[in-house]
Amino acid sequence: MDEVNRWLLPDGLEEALPAAARRLEHLRRAILDQFDVWGYDLVMPPLAEYLDSLLIGTGRELDLQTFKLTDQLTGKLMGVRADLTPQVARIDAHRLREPGTTRLCYVGTVLRTRADEWSGSRSPLQAGAELFGHDGLDSDVEIIRLMLATLERCGVREPSIDLGHVDIYRSLARMAALDPARESRFFEMLQRKAVPEIEQALAEWGLDAEVARQLRALVDLNGGAEVLTEARAVLASAPVQVSAALEHLAAVIERLHAAQPGLDIHVDLGELRGYSYHTGLVFAAFVPGSGQEIARGGRYNHIGRVFGRARAATGFSTDLKQLIRLAPVPADRARDCVLAPAQGDAGLEAAIEELRARGVRVRRLLAGEAADTLTESPRLQKRGEVWTVEET
Amino acid sequence: MDEVNRWLLPDGLEEALPAAARRLEHLRRAILDQFDVWGYDLVMPPLAEYLDSLLIGTGRELDLQTFKLTDQLTGKLMGVRADLTPQVARIDAHRLREPGTTRLCYVGTVLRTRADEWSGSRSPLQAGAELFGHDGLDSDVEIIRLMLATLERCGVREPSIDLGHVDIYRSLARMAALDPARESRFFEMLQRKAVPEIEQALAEWGLDAEVARQLRALVDLNGGAEVLTEARAVLASAPVQVSAALEHLAAVIERLHAAQPGLDIHVDLGELRGYSYHTGLVFAAFVPGSGQEIARGGRYNHIGRVFGRARAATGFSTDLKQLIRLAPVPADRARDCVLAPAQGDAGLEAAIEELRARGVRVRRLLAGEAADTLTESPRLQKRGEVWTVEET
Repeated sequence: MDEVNRWLLPDGLEEALPAAARRLEHLRRAILDQFDVWGYDLVMPPLAEYLDSLLIGTGRELDLQTFKLTDQLTGKLMGVRADLTPQVARIDAHRLREPGTTRLCYVGTVLRTRADEWSGSRSPLQAGAELFGHDGLDSDVEIIRLMLATLERCGVREPSIDLGHVDIYRSLARMAALDPARESRFFEMLQRKAVPEIEQALAEWGLDAEVARQLRALVDLNGGAEVLTEARAVLASAPVQVSAALEHLAAVIERLHAAQPGLDIHVDLGELRGYSYHTGLVFAAFVPGSGQEIARGGRYNHIGRVFGRARAATGFSTDLKQLIRLAPVPADRARDCVLAPAQGDAGLEAAIEELRARGVRVRRLLAGEAADTLTESPRLQKRGEVWTVEET
Repeated sequence: MDEVNRWLLPDGLEEALPAAARRLEHLRRAILDQFDVWGYDLVMPPLAEYLDSLLIGTGRELDLQTFKLTDQLTGKLMGVRADLTPQVARIDAHRLREPGTTRLCYVGTVLRTRADEWSGSRSPLQAGAELFGHDGLDSDVEIIRLMLATLERCGVREPSIDLGHVDIYRSLARMAALDPARESRFFEMLQRKAVPEIEQALAEWGLDAEVARQLRALVDLNGGAEVLTEARAVLASAPVQVSAALEHLAAVIERLHAAQPGLDIHVDLGELRGYSYHTGLVFAAFVPGSGQEIARGGRYNHIGRVFGRARAATGFSTDLKQLIRLAPVPADRARDCVLAPAQGDAGLEAAIEELRARGVRVRRLLAGEAADTLTESPRLQKRGEVWTVEET
């Protein structure tokens, strides 16, 4: 292996050099400060846990995405976290066990066996907020508004959002009595909006004509808020969970439009990709124009049950590494630095300390270092008895 | 497995709940701001890398501490980082390739197969600074002073420091022509200061009497700065690298005492534990009284060679999870929160936004939530047409 190849990083495990790292840190603080003023408490789940607590209740997709390790102390399998949300749900249900609502937030790197389709990353810097202990419109709306406020704070201009509801597909699939293999096959075709395959499968499976018609209709039930009107007609004979989900979507849209009249809201009743542990309203935010997904979330009421405490829950998450590509670039401090000699009197030490305490960057010249390679930087110079900063 | 045991975290993989997480975040920002005004640029190395770049040149100890993963994309072995310093050295040598000096800093979680003897942790939150491209007194002193300033900023009162120098033991072992097995056996006995075993081994190995006497003397060469005087006498006939190392130690002590006259400096010429890739001056900081090590570092000039570019280098690192146990507790914001209704008019939305922009924490009450469980919190109330914060 030659020298160049030896130092290649694995695909999707990127690192941040100074310019990008400065932007990530800037964004990280802005987001955590935002979560804080909204009442969300920071938690820091571990980088790895035993697999049986890390993955339980989260579905096969997360299992495939999780790197496995053997704990040498116990011989048990551990996983490196591929998603922080289930860890935060465990903390709420098992560690904090608070009565009433609990608001938690986090930021941390996750590791995944396969790359995200948009960013190509296998190690997103995931930031998110979760609201536990409340089921209903208010918490759904709060989380979506926090996601929008967070994206705005990060400089993402007018993201559009997609809304869906897991209960609609689940109820229809249950009514159709699809076995697990067929349900998962249909789900996969639905995500691809593969109409000919869907129609062929529905014909072959010999389903009740009305249910088959409703399942087929999911492919086309996407667009503006008017989709809900259409869905009410097409799915009129569906189980009550379906009409309840449609009413809930309508109420969320009304509340969001009241708060942000210009918000671009899209409804898609068939799009459920990546919502493996979700149970109710799901949503995602997109960069207008590019169609790039930049944040997603939704309700996941049942995950707490496996932790010994069923808790209502909703939340969202985003990837800071994606967001810095969209955020405005902050001023570069790299050149904005005062040069000072390595050695001097007590006055020099005091002058350096005072500058740094004011947030000024001071770099000391080391013996043998040529200051003239940095001619544009201001210098700390002694004039008479006083050390002063002089421009060069 | 019963419910309680299922959610046990692996030993040493602790998580931070809100009170601790708030303190960690506070400390994290203080340290990064400090590194910044000293002229150190933040970098964020990846959580995992291919083993052959992660571990090369770092020694067997780090290999044993590193969790291994198989990359499903390439079938190659990767390691989860157990130490950030070698990654930062790779970034300096291979990615940045700057002429002159380069100052870098970082903060990130590492994962280790075995626990640290002091903290019991296998996932320290490692923060550190590295100075590349300068070999000599100025850079050694700058890094030690930055370590001391960082600990002071974190509220650690008057830490003591230990100084050592890798060249002293290495030169003597080379002069004694110890084979690798004996060198590593002697090193291990020296760390335990196991005098009877050392004397027996030296006698059995049939070394030159003068070299044996000098190797034996290392056990006792620890104490205040006066140890250097004693060492100059005892090691007078040793190779020139030994006397150069002693002069370097004396010069560092002089410079540190000039800057901080009261600093408690301890010299130990036999203590080299954990400095597997170091090559010159090494140092550690301790909590006075308890003897707990809280930061360490030193020179590692040769690590850059394996990355295709030999660079002088020195640096230090510390563990924020240890530091928060020593730092003063910041005010708890958990109760300092204004309650607001979930729904209201445009005036309510504006009032909430204005409070949050000022950094005030506002928590919205969700439908069905009983505000009287939080009776001590101030409320946003509408009086006439105006929303105002009222104490309860």
